[in-house]
Amino acid sequence: MLNLTDVPAAVDAVLDEFFQATAPILESIYPTVGDGGAALREFVMTGGKRIRPMFVYAGRRCPGDKITVSETPRDGDETLRVCAAIELIQACALIHDDILDRSDTRRGNPTIHRRFEALHRARGWGHDPAHYGDSAAILIGDLALAWADDLFHGALPVAIADQTTPPRPIPFPASAVWSQMRTEVLAGQFLDITNEASGDESTTAAERVMTYKTAAYTVARPLELGATLGGADENMRRELHGIGIDLGVAFQLRDDLLGVFGDPAETGKPSGDDLVAGKRTALLAVALRSADDAARSVLRESIGRTLDDAEIAAARGVLVDSGAVAEIERQIAVRRDAGLARIDVLDCDESARADLCALAHRITDRSR
Amino acid sequence: MLNLTDVPAAVDAVLDEFFQATAPILESIYPTVGDGGAALREFVMTGGKRIRPMFVYAGRRCPGDKITVSETPRDGDETLRVCAAIELIQACALIHDDILDRSDTRRGNPTIHRRFEALHRARGWGHDPAHYGDSAAILIGDLALAWADDLFHGALPVAIADQTTPPRPIPFPASAVWSQMRTEVLAGQFLDITNEASGDESTTAAERVMTYKTAAYTVARPLELGATLGGADENMRRELHGIGIDLGVAFQLRDDLLGVFGDPAETGKPSGDDLVAGKRTALLAVALRSADDAARSVLRESIGRTLDDAEIAAARGVLVDSGAVAEIERQIAVRRDAGLARIDVLDCDESARADLCALAHRITDRSR
Repeated sequence: MLNLTDVPAAVDAVLDEFFQATAPILESIYPTVGDGGAALREFVMTGGKRIRPMFVYAGRRCPGDKITVSETPRDGDETLRVCAAIELIQACALIHDDILDRSDTRRGNPTIHRRFEALHRARGWGHDPAHYGDSAAILIGDLALAWADDLFHGALPVAIADQTTPPRPIPFPASAVWSQMRTEVLAGQFLDITNEASGDESTTAAERVMTYKTAAYTVARPLELGATLGGADENMRRELHGIGIDLGVAFQLRDDLLGVFGDPAETGKPSGDDLVAGKRTALLAVALRSADDAARSVLRESIGRTLDDAEIAAARGVLVDSGAVAEIERQIAVRRDAGLARIDVLDCDESARADLCALAHRITDRSR
Repeated sequence: MLNLTDVPAAVDAVLDEFFQATAPILESIYPTVGDGGAALREFVMTGGKRIRPMFVYAGRRCPGDKITVSETPRDGDETLRVCAAIELIQACALIHDDILDRSDTRRGNPTIHRRFEALHRARGWGHDPAHYGDSAAILIGDLALAWADDLFHGALPVAIADQTTPPRPIPFPASAVWSQMRTEVLAGQFLDITNEASGDESTTAAERVMTYKTAAYTVARPLELGATLGGADENMRRELHGIGIDLGVAFQLRDDLLGVFGDPAETGKPSGDDLVAGKRTALLAVALRSADDAARSVLRESIGRTLDDAEIAAARGVLVDSGAVAEIERQIAVRRDAGLARIDVLDCDESARADLCALAHRITDRSR
């Protein structure tokens, strides 16, 4: 098996082969359709930390000696195919999310819907450029979602499928974990926009979003999926899921801090992005609860609108002075340590354990 | 195997079981998420002619005695699962299409995005009801697309998967046909909105939309998919695909006529809907080419805006008087007869042939 640090490049190779095989299909339908595929390819290939694939891969190693499926080169290919598939789910999630959040920038570039809106304007087409941009991005996201399933299940384009030994489909129960993961992330996203619309500020609602939209989808299900591919038993699958929820919540809390305090050069997002977007994060909830009245109004007035540098600095001041930043850092440490403690006693071999620990630190202590 | 007329009810039973099994998953995430699932369920269960499932089923019968996979009850279940899966693709296509076309009504009911916009208003939530409606509909469509793949590949919720004999995944090459079909319908849709934005009125562009968005997706690939599931050889698969393109184009041309002349009580769409929506159909293209200058301006002024009854009647008059309606009827007959001629010499048993003929007539000679 690969070292964890080599997984992103190996996943990129699978994705690149897939995009090369699908490009002629789109081109042959009509040249302008090829533009849609090219935009998706560029979006996927020029960004992303490949966090989810690394968790799938780390999970795959956990069953170790106890695996019921012996690892052949073909098993290795399948694991990488699943890793690549999850990056296409992520592409759909981000492309559609950016429509929902009306975001202009992603990974330092225009979002897909803004890109097609700009193309519409540049070509001087009729009607409504913004509506065309949204429509194109809806369909490109749909294509990413459909292709994710094709990669996962081995429904590969004839150009890359080995016809003599055709791709093996992923069997149940691994496919059931994949199913559950996709339902959860979409449900989490639906809950997120609904909470925002209804103004539901209950802790339960916010926690559920964090659990399903991020923790389950980014860490818990990928770990469980990898382990299930490797033949892990019910016990190990449940344990890895639990570890993943702890680490995934810590990951999201770190994201909340970076969303306000992150360096745009590292995050690829504008300064104070979460404030401008009006995201109801745990960080914000703690600050609104802890700040005094004057500070609370400063914060409330800094949410969901364009801010200049002085206003961003003032909002950041409230988040620090109210103790909210320290509280979130504390929660990150608690969740990370809970995860690490469970990894410590996991019934797996030492190299798998080392990978899990490295990933746990990496996602909770990061600057982008 | 079932009689073709019994297929819709059998497909509905599979869909109903699936929705019953997934509802508690969504409910357990959060009650408001359950509302999204309930809307999808109602959308799927209360409408639709189940045309695509019938073509899958008819295709499955074609290999007949020559099938390489003998039919067991389990094979029958798989065929119905594939039939049900394609209805969920259709749900995604319609729900997202309605956002793209800004449609208010579908199957006589409010479209999904309008439904959630209305729910937002009724509950007096903040921000932008229309944007919430679109966002909810994007995610509900995504869920339908993800669930379609789950049903197709047997990645069933644990509640309905038989754990002792877990669902068998659909093997290559049937999965490759499914993949191709999904790529084609999304590409056709992308091409459609791009032609409309760019004002591309070339015959090639319009034909490609008709081929990929409708003919391949509605008839050709479902037929081929069913036959591939039944173990059909390359020859039969290619032949059924060709038949499907002929019949599918005829189906779309009939749809173009119904889009202007259809009875709202039967089609579930407002009178003259395609004119108001500004769709660039073959019917319109022929009329614009054949009408005299005065009639052509009447027609051009009737496209893409709200029309009163007199205006609809005037536009219809031009379509008839220019000979466009007769020309489209002629093309429907040509395509239908070409398909029927090829069905006539298809190397399959007589009951399968009778089913194909019945479907060919049904989709080309209909009032809804």
